[in-house]
This record gives sequence, C-alpha cells and structure tokens, in this order.
Amino acid sequence: MGSVGHVTPQRMKFSRPLPLRSGAQLSDYELVYETYGQLNADKSNAVLVCHALNASHHVAGSYAGQERSEGWWDNLIGPGKPLDTERFFVIGINNPGSCFGSTGPMHINPATGRVYGADFPVVTVHDWVDAQARVLDELGITQLAAVLGGSLGGMQALDWSLRYPDRMRHCIAIATAPSLSAQNIAFNEVARRAIITDPDFHGGHFYEHGVVPKRGLRVARMIGHITYLSDDVMEQKFGRQMRAAELGYSTQDIEFQIESYLRHQGDKFSEYFDANTYLLITRALDYFDPAREHGGDLSRTFAAARCKFLLASFTTDWRFSPARSREIVKALLDNKRDVSYAEIDAPHGHDAFLLEDPRYHGVLRAYFERIAKEFAA
Amino acid sequence: MGSVGHVTPQRMKFSRPLPLRSGAQLSDYELVYETYGQLNADKSNAVLVCHALNASHHVAGSYAGQERSEGWWDNLIGPGKPLDTERFFVIGINNPGSCFGSTGPMHINPATGRVYGADFPVVTVHDWVDAQARVLDELGITQLAAVLGGSLGGMQALDWSLRYPDRMRHCIAIATAPSLSAQNIAFNEVARRAIITDPDFHGGHFYEHGVVPKRGLRVARMIGHITYLSDDVMEQKFGRQMRAAELGYSTQDIEFQIESYLRHQGDKFSEYFDANTYLLITRALDYFDPAREHGGDLSRTFAAARCKFLLASFTTDWRFSPARSREIVKALLDNKRDVSYAEIDAPHGHDAFLLEDPRYHGVLRAYFERIAKEFAA
Repeated sequence: MGSVGHVTPQRMKFSRPLPLRSGAQLSDYELVYETYGQLNADKSNAVLVCHALNASHHVAGSYAGQERSEGWWDNLIGPGKPLDTERFFVIGINNPGSCFGSTGPMHINPATGRVYGADFPVVTVHDWVDAQARVLDELGITQLAAVLGGSLGGMQALDWSLRYPDRMRHCIAIATAPSLSAQNIAFNEVARRAIITDPDFHGGHFYEHGVVPKRGLRVARMIGHITYLSDDVMEQKFGRQMRAAELGYSTQDIEFQIESYLRHQGDKFSEYFDANTYLLITRALDYFDPAREHGGDLSRTFAAARCKFLLASFTTDWRFSPARSREIVKALLDNKRDVSYAEIDAPHGHDAFLLEDPRYHGVLRAYFERIAKEFAA
Repeated sequence: MGSVGHVTPQRMKFSRPLPLRSGAQLSDYELVYETYGQLNADKSNAVLVCHALNASHHVAGSYAGQERSEGWWDNLIGPGKPLDTERFFVIGINNPGSCFGSTGPMHINPATGRVYGADFPVVTVHDWVDAQARVLDELGITQLAAVLGGSLGGMQALDWSLRYPDRMRHCIAIATAPSLSAQNIAFNEVARRAIITDPDFHGGHFYEHGVVPKRGLRVARMIGHITYLSDDVMEQKFGRQMRAAELGYSTQDIEFQIESYLRHQGDKFSEYFDANTYLLITRALDYFDPAREHGGDLSRTFAAARCKFLLASFTTDWRFSPARSREIVKALLDNKRDVSYAEIDAPHGHDAFLLEDPRYHGVLRAYFERIAKEFAA
C-alpha cells in the first residue's frame, strides 16, 4: 500500500455569486482543491471527500519539500489503500470560510476592499455542498461514485444525499449525527465565547490590529480536544501521570501530563488556525439539521435520498455517539433505502474516524470494493 | 418537613498556624461556620457537612431579610428532613481558600500587609480536613456521628475516614471519586487557563488593579456547567430550541436556548466568585488521591478506615461516574468494612446530588435513621 506521492493543490475561480442560506451571497470567490488517481472515461469513478473542522482539501499525499505534510486522511487513501486511487478518482475541496486556501475571513472582501474578518458571511453545510457541486460541474462530473466524510464531513455527505440525490450513487457518513445535541452546541458555544471575549479578537477585525486572539483559540482547542478523545483513551494515555516526581503545589504550573498535552495542542492550534473560521465552522455544525424543514421528522427528511448508504460509528465516541448514527439508519430503513451500518468497538472516541483501525478500515475497504465492482462491471 | 429557619454564620479565629501539605502554613486565619439543631449532652449527634466547589458553610436555612438565601443543601437538612435537625447537630464549615467568608485570597496576608491574591498558599483536601478538625476541637466534639459530603465534599468525607478514623462513626460520600480522571483534570485545566490567560487576571493580583477576570470566570463556569449536567437532561431541557422563530445566521448572537442558559450561568458566576479561589479549589480536586501514598493501591489505602460507610452515585453522572464510587466500595469490602452503596437511576448527571430525588433522599433518610438509633439506644 503506497502513498499518492507528491500532490499539488489547484485553484478554481468563481465569478458567479454563490447564494447562501442566510440570504447573503459570496461573490468572486476561489476554491482550492486536490485530486488523486485518474478520472475514468465515463467519469463514473469519482469520490468526493468532505472535510471536518480542522482539515482541508489536502486529504492525501504530501507536498514536495515539506516534511510531515501528509494529507489528513492519507492512511485511508492511496494506491492499494481502502479508498484505492488505482480505481477511484478522489477529490478534496476546501470549503469557503476555511483558513486553508479557499476564500475565507482572511481574504479581501471585494465589496469593501478590506479583509472580511467577522464580515465574512455565515456559511452552512448546505452552502458548502452547493459550492462543491459547482466544482464538480467545472470538472464535468455529473454523478459521483460516492461522497465520503467523517464528523462535520459526514454531515456534508448526508446533505449531498438529500440535495443532490441523483448526482451520487453512495453516501459514506462516518462518526456523524443528523444534528448537534444541546451538549454539542454547548461545547461549541463555550469555545466561541473564549475567542470572542479575548480582547485581541477586536470584534473579529483583529487582522487590522496586527494581533491574533491566541488565548481564546488555545482554550477553544483544548475544549475541542477533550471532546475528541474518549475518557478511556485519555486515562490510558495520561491517567494521573505527573510531570515531575514531586508535587509542585501550584495552580499555574503544569503538574499532570494531560495538562502539558492539552496546552501543547492549544498552542499549536493558535499558531495556524483562524479565529473567524473557528466561529464559522462551529456555527455550521450547530445549524446543520436537515429534519428542521420536515417538522423534525428524520424519516420524512430522508425520503429525498436515492443513493445507497454506509454509516459507521465508534463505541467510545461521546461527541457523536453511535445512537446518533442509528437515528439516521432508522430513518433510511423507514424509507427502504439500502443501508449498511458498522458500529466499531474502538477505544479512541471521536478521533477514531481519522485513525487506522483494522476493523474500521476493513469495512471501508469492503464497501469501496463493492462500489468499484459497479463501474468495473 | 420544615426549614431550620433563619441562621447566623459564626466566626472562629485561629492564631496557631495550620501546617499545609505543600510545606507552607496558614497563620492568623478565620473560619466561618454555621450549626443547626442541638448538640446532645454526650456530644454524640454531630454531623459535619463538607462543601464542594461553589458552596460554603451556609448549608441550610436562610438569612433574615435576604430573599432566596436558602442554604445549598436545604432540601436535605431541617426538621423532619432526611438529615433531621431535631435529632442531629449539623455543622457546615467554610474551607480556607474559599471566597465565602473564611480566610482566602481576597483577605490580607499578615506576612505582607497586602491582599493574598495568587500568593494564598495552595490548599488540599487534607488541609481542609485538618482545618475542620480544629473547629470541632474548639466545639468540644471528639467524635462525629457522621461526615457527609458530595463531589469534592465527598472527597473530604473520605479523607476524614482515613486521617481521623476514630473521630467519626459514619462516612457518607456521594457522587464522588477516589481521585480525578485524566478527563476531569483536563476540564479543570481548561477552566484555569481561561482564567489565568484573561488579561484582567494580572497574575492573580487583579484586586490591586480594580478589575476582575470576568471573561475567564465566565468560560470556566460554562465548562463546569456542561460537566455537571447529563447529556440527557440537557437534551430534555434545551434540545435544539431556538431563541427566535427564524435563524439569525450569526456566530456571535444567541441562536439556541442552551447558549442563553450557559451565558447566563457564566455571567452570574463571574459576579460573585473569586478567580483565585477557583484555581485553588480545582487544584485541590486534582491533587486528591489518597492512594498515591500507597502505591496507587486503594484497598491498602482504606485499611486505615474504621467507620461505617454509605456511598451513593448517579447513573447519568459522567463527571464522577458510578464506576468511580464502585472502586471505593471494592476497596472497603477488601478491608471487610461495613459499606452500603446505592447507585441511583437519576437523569440529572452530577448535579443530582444537590437535587431532591425521592429514591436518593429515601436512601439518605434510612441511613440517618440507622445512625440516630445508635446514639438514641
């Protein structure tokens, strides 16, 4: 099993405005994307991979001359890997509002000539899916073999199945949910408050002040990180391990290894992630709720879907628990859709969807082999 | 079942320094306490109630002329209530380091003549228990009928049973743990970072600057609040209820009722709670680990205990889960101690220990009746 090797991001410019759910629109925007593998003659082997909060179009492979630049799902995608680039043409698109290349809060607002900052329009999962569909239009891909995503990426995959039912044959949604719970929203809100109340946030226009709300970003990331890991795996990895042999009796210094780990994660994140993007992406998570337009009835919601489904969840994921995936499975069965579901006994919590668990990757490999047979036949 | 009525806090001054675990000492300190009911002739009916993070000596009754000033465990303690003040003499003591009256970071450091602030010595559960024992010395109480506490208060009750085994006949420890897990410490650490990195914290000497690190306190309280409630009860109480009929598409305004609730809790807390106290108390939680001196062996640790035990936990408490209480029960059984254990099926998460659940209060009532028979006989 190999890597797709060195890859190069590409850019696509859109002069036609993208109408957004909020009523606003995004004009003169650019999207960054990457592709791996070859599109076959009848353009039937394309798989769109949707990214989650802290990820991008850079899904697999690495950048020439940049060490440790592997894509975020490189363990899954490549020649001979579960999503085999010798059979599939894989596309990763960076969503608008991101801070990894596509038009986002750090770019110039053509309407004002100033950096967007907090004026970047609120984007939703629906808007992202629409933006992705336009990229596929340009690439001449009318129907995807599959849309794949985990977590917030899984929400995009589900939304695809509802909004573009004829443009895909399979939806693969991993460690996701049909909407956030009150507790999920609560964690997002605390993280946002930490950022927004950081004096260096300046109402979202910190770029003009030459500062970054790092304190808020650090706290936001620390909170996030706790929710990505299971209680179990945190206990196994860190437990009550002390940094030094003797207690220091300090409220401010690091005493426990878990503190050191979390601070490090927070520091790293605050160096590269954009505060406005964090707000936008957590809000997109909060808003996702396709059943809302159907009186909260998930079964009626999924009546719109036409494709086949694979759902997967992880037993120790308390952020998007298996129960949330089962809600989707039930709604699909109510509509007599073809749905496979794997509940995987993995210790890593929500993070498991990014890791290389043999049972998990085995399920994905088998499912992609099934898909490949359809267009090979 | 009535209230203990209007109560008046009392103060006790200590000129003999209190040696602390850290090696430091607390000199010239005062502790505030309240008592309810009457101490009987042979002083055998005293129950000490230990408080948790956001609580104090004011356990029951109310203050004359102050509306809504009920003590934090008023539903449990009073004439005819489960802890019946017609039979028991109940004592609540505010721990040193608190911000509710006993000597703490907001008071003057006699060594410097300046407000302690961040210079207040780090206090541990052990230190609090020692401080409480001195109050009992002054009251002439050589043996308690029981020590009772929930959460951090339960840790103090457990510590009493290990450090003063002959000074108590019963230990009642509710919704507690033999030590914090990595995840528990992680949540404390994020809350502390939010406070410490608030520019208004000024290294813990904000009093001199005439400011309060309210931003940090708000975030800390919001995080805490999420962990006190169960996912279920949050879903039942708030779910995805919106504040307005239409989405506002904003990252900064309140959209969901859960956001409004959390912000309100954070605002309220930041108005009255001291930031240095928050750091001290969360650190005391982190440090509590009586098994540490016994090579991590909880069974060897509890060999020191002599009293009888009641432990109770709540099924939906994910902060101090039933599994943590069971660890203590096992250690006590290994030592052939008399232990009763109730795992109560309540939806409210960690907060349940403060609420009036009939099954929970029924267990406490029955246990206190058993204790009362011992000294009535």
